[in-house]
Amino acid sequence: MGKLLQTKGMAKQISGHLIAEIKRMKEDGIDPTIAVLIVQGDPASECYAKVKQRIARQLGIRYLLTSVHSKITETELLEKIKWLNRCPSIHGIILELPLPKHLNAKKMASAIAPEKDVDGLSPTNKLACLTGDEGLYSATPQSCIRILDHFGYPLKGKNVVLIGCGETVGKPLVQLLLRANATLTVCHAYTTDLKDHIANADILITAVGKKDLITSDMVHHDLVIVDAGINETEGGIVGDVKPEVSEFVKAFTPVPGGVGKITTMILFENLVKAVQLQENKKSIEKREVQRSESL
Amino acid sequence: MGKLLQTKGMAKQISGHLIAEIKRMKEDGIDPTIAVLIVQGDPASECYAKVKQRIARQLGIRYLLTSVHSKITETELLEKIKWLNRCPSIHGIILELPLPKHLNAKKMASAIAPEKDVDGLSPTNKLACLTGDEGLYSATPQSCIRILDHFGYPLKGKNVVLIGCGETVGKPLVQLLLRANATLTVCHAYTTDLKDHIANADILITAVGKKDLITSDMVHHDLVIVDAGINETEGGIVGDVKPEVSEFVKAFTPVPGGVGKITTMILFENLVKAVQLQENKKSIEKREVQRSESL
Repeated sequence: MGKLLQTKGMAKQISGHLIAEIKRMKEDGIDPTIAVLIVQGDPASECYAKVKQRIARQLGIRYLLTSVHSKITETELLEKIKWLNRCPSIHGIILELPLPKHLNAKKMASAIAPEKDVDGLSPTNKLACLTGDEGLYSATPQSCIRILDHFGYPLKGKNVVLIGCGETVGKPLVQLLLRANATLTVCHAYTTDLKDHIANADILITAVGKKDLITSDMVHHDLVIVDAGINETEGGIVGDVKPEVSEFVKAFTPVPGGVGKITTMILFENLVKAVQLQENKKSIEKREVQRSESL
Repeated sequence: MGKLLQTKGMAKQISGHLIAEIKRMKEDGIDPTIAVLIVQGDPASECYAKVKQRIARQLGIRYLLTSVHSKITETELLEKIKWLNRCPSIHGIILELPLPKHLNAKKMASAIAPEKDVDGLSPTNKLACLTGDEGLYSATPQSCIRILDHFGYPLKGKNVVLIGCGETVGKPLVQLLLRANATLTVCHAYTTDLKDHIANADILITAVGKKDLITSDMVHHDLVIVDAGINETEGGIVGDVKPEVSEFVKAFTPVPGGVGKITTMILFENLVKAVQLQENKKSIEKREVQRSESL
């Protein structure tokens, strides 16, 4: 049996730091606030929104939920986002995905002010993740990297196989893994010899969303698996890796209790960072006003 | 001996299309113009600028060279760039790299107007390359992809090893290769088992700038090599691949006469695209003025 990389303790550590930081902010007169915007009709989104609400409460973060009708138009939703962008007491905005088909998710996400975009979906933050500049990076990719670091699996020079290169997880992970100097192989639906690639890997990260994608015959005893897959089944949430695989690898993250737990924490770390970005912006603007007044 | 992928004929094909397109533009009263900005002191840059000048002339493109002193300050250089951005008769701007150490290349490149940035170095174009949106993409990565396509080596589902993940070639290539559905392995200075990765590859692309990086013992008879390396030696420019490697692979691009030739052509394709982007922008602005006047 491989080592179970349960992230409960790690999450507790991060939440301890966050609680202290948020307390400090409140003493400075800032009340960190996150706004979650949900378009009705996706039960999973509503469930995730509730998890965030519970954790926000534990951390001392103000949580505002705006639930809008599934027939909302793009113009109306954009207005909502713009209002949240302008509202000075809101520091972070989450637009729960997926959206109904008549709404263009990319267009909607692009409308979120970069300094409030805690999900890292706006163009400015995607670019920052690519170039390594300061910004708010997508939470799940950060979670994968942090878990490996926490449990003592360095990335530099290691052979990492990443399966999946979607917009929110795979693509930003490519950037983070390359910046960490991993030798990276990106596999996907068109890969013909997944097993051969995994045979050479030290670390396997799956971000596909396909139950039982990884089976025992594909892995080996020196492999560390980070399972970032989320698949809803009747029995609850499962990852991309078949449960019995755990017998044949060096270490693995469980689902639930692995990547997701840390993702939620990093989302709130992003909120704290968002507050700081907004405070910096405010003080720069203030200084500029003072300078122009003194001229 | 592997198949020699000489790109002379392909370059001629592209230049034929370009000449026709540029002729059409001139008939419409547009005189496609490229401005090359060069900071003195790097002989190689000056040489590349001359090659571009020669080809521009062949294609019927107006070429303006601005050569500035190596001691120019950032503020002064930024002013030059801004002037070129504003000048309506200039459609494309190339800032020759590398710059002297006191000038921040990233900052300078970011100042180029995205719709004139034929090298694809501005943040807007880097992001477009990442997301697949319309924009001007870096020329060398496009060149590699186009050569493989031209000679009938499709990428979808193939195992591609890319060595090098620098800002101008490697990183944008990662995005293009993934979008072409290649199974991609990115290797670099920290990769420990380069040879093993190449053993599994159908296609190898090198973009390092290290003479004799790839030797005969590292390759195999089913491998197609695209050499995007540029190394200046006393005997002229050479690639990353040792010459004798050509004996042991399926096909390979020579240096010179391979990637570089197409890169230059794509630079001018980008210029034509830049003209179109600017014309579109102008007609949108015109329509907006007309609409506001009619209100």
